[in-house]
Amino acid sequence: MLAALAGGVGAARFLAGLVQCVDPSEITVVGNTGDDEEFFGLHVSPDLDSITYTLAGASNTEQGWGLEGESFRTMHALTRYGEPNWFNLGDLDLATHIFRTRRMRGDGATLAEVTADVAAAWKLDLHLLPMTNDSVRTRITCARSDGTREVLAMQEWFVRERAEPAVLQVDFDGAGTARPAPGVLDALDRADTIVICPSNPIISIGPILAIPGVRDALVRRRDRVVAVCPIIDGAPVRGPADRLMAPLGVEVSPAGVARHYREFCATLVIDERDAAHAEAVRAAGVRPVVTETLMRSPQIAAELAQCTLAAVA
Amino acid sequence: MLAALAGGVGAARFLAGLVQCVDPSEITVVGNTGDDEEFFGLHVSPDLDSITYTLAGASNTEQGWGLEGESFRTMHALTRYGEPNWFNLGDLDLATHIFRTRRMRGDGATLAEVTADVAAAWKLDLHLLPMTNDSVRTRITCARSDGTREVLAMQEWFVRERAEPAVLQVDFDGAGTARPAPGVLDALDRADTIVICPSNPIISIGPILAIPGVRDALVRRRDRVVAVCPIIDGAPVRGPADRLMAPLGVEVSPAGVARHYREFCATLVIDERDAAHAEAVRAAGVRPVVTETLMRSPQIAAELAQCTLAAVA
Repeated sequence: MLAALAGGVGAARFLAGLVQCVDPSEITVVGNTGDDEEFFGLHVSPDLDSITYTLAGASNTEQGWGLEGESFRTMHALTRYGEPNWFNLGDLDLATHIFRTRRMRGDGATLAEVTADVAAAWKLDLHLLPMTNDSVRTRITCARSDGTREVLAMQEWFVRERAEPAVLQVDFDGAGTARPAPGVLDALDRADTIVICPSNPIISIGPILAIPGVRDALVRRRDRVVAVCPIIDGAPVRGPADRLMAPLGVEVSPAGVARHYREFCATLVIDERDAAHAEAVRAAGVRPVVTETLMRSPQIAAELAQCTLAAVA
Repeated sequence: MLAALAGGVGAARFLAGLVQCVDPSEITVVGNTGDDEEFFGLHVSPDLDSITYTLAGASNTEQGWGLEGESFRTMHALTRYGEPNWFNLGDLDLATHIFRTRRMRGDGATLAEVTADVAAAWKLDLHLLPMTNDSVRTRITCARSDGTREVLAMQEWFVRERAEPAVLQVDFDGAGTARPAPGVLDALDRADTIVICPSNPIISIGPILAIPGVRDALVRRRDRVVAVCPIIDGAPVRGPADRLMAPLGVEVSPAGVARHYREFCATLVIDERDAAHAEAVRAAGVRPVVTETLMRSPQIAAELAQCTLAAVA
């Protein structure tokens, strides 16, 4: 049995490699929902959907997010009514959000139940769980250039403001009283290996760890926990990890990630380009494993997954 | 001042003629919402939207419903999740339903408030009101071929079942306790002329009359009420009026409409093709006015509107 903590696109690519090495029915993915947001009254779960679409082979690889062959007619039409249009929701993608919202509001389904419905509709064979059925929202306190502070939702900061406002603080509203979704703690307790996918440590993995019980479960299983470093050559492969790590005192390097994860993670897979950082990772109390981690092809993703599992075998 | 009771497409075409003859700001339209339905958890108001889109010059005239240049990508994508697809909701049209639902659920707006928002977004100059802010749903009791009875929502009967099941009874669930939307009774009381648009007498005009106070307001103003007959040459121009009128004992003819409306309507505009029915209309106690009523062009619609107003001038 295998469990994985996952953010969005980077995690999705890694998981697409993982299902080539392991029977998918033995994999339980715990996905971040701190980035979930309501747009136009619809419940959007960006990370869960990135995983689903990618594993279904339906993601738009050129664009790096969303669905292949997507169009944006409904969203454009919504601007007539003064609705915000800074978060791109495609016509095909909207079907997922409309369905999710109807199931939750109309049928009273939990996010976990709908996530399973959506995964089944896309014929995923692994188990995809939201970290919680409760509302947890990542909020980013920023410094404006005029010296004022502003609290932004994660998507506001990242998409609308292009991750430009300087970050002072990150909070996961609601995490303190949230309960892990059914099956999350059980999957972590029973897993032979727990993989922390190559996702943003602060706002993708951070919210999952903030759900009461999750971090403790990892601490208990520390020897079985392996992380794939999302930082290569001093920068994130994709996304704003550096804009969040540095101001929060986490060095944008394999050693920074190792120190951030050391309490609950025994092994860190780092990129060949960062081989020189292996000693610093080891000095942080984490065992480094060096391999190719830039997933430029499904083949490389599968090899990375294989290497990651072998590291704690 | 002018008030109009309106169903969907037929009414919309008439109103498009009316605004060519009268200052739109003097017109208050009371629209049927008995056909409103939730699809995919979104509040759809078919008649109000038909009026808005038509008056905005954005309706799909070839298709006879919906918006010009429409596509159906989101609805097609929803079938992946097992959602019903018998009611066509286009990508552009969906924006209206998403906006309406968010305003009502998220902001607590009334249907009347959202209807005004939508009308303003399409730059309508007349006042468009739903008959009520409360939930009124037209329910059609049908006889199945195996002898059983079944109660269908109006859209289920008309669209999904193509108006084929024989009609036994029509009810307007919720009408008994519904209140007219703010402004409805006032508009009827103050109007110099009240027009009953060429709409289905049973399921388009019927629900409006079933809202407490509306029928009485018309009875009081009977001399100022003029209807445009939706039946030409023994059949409705469009829609299933005949499938509803006959089983409910309303003759599918100008005289049948006249007898159905006589208590609150002094004048009925009938088509030239039905000139021979003028005497039967008169015998029902309603004054017939004969003109061209088949609105094959905006020009004919304007002439019909002019004639309708002149009939009670």
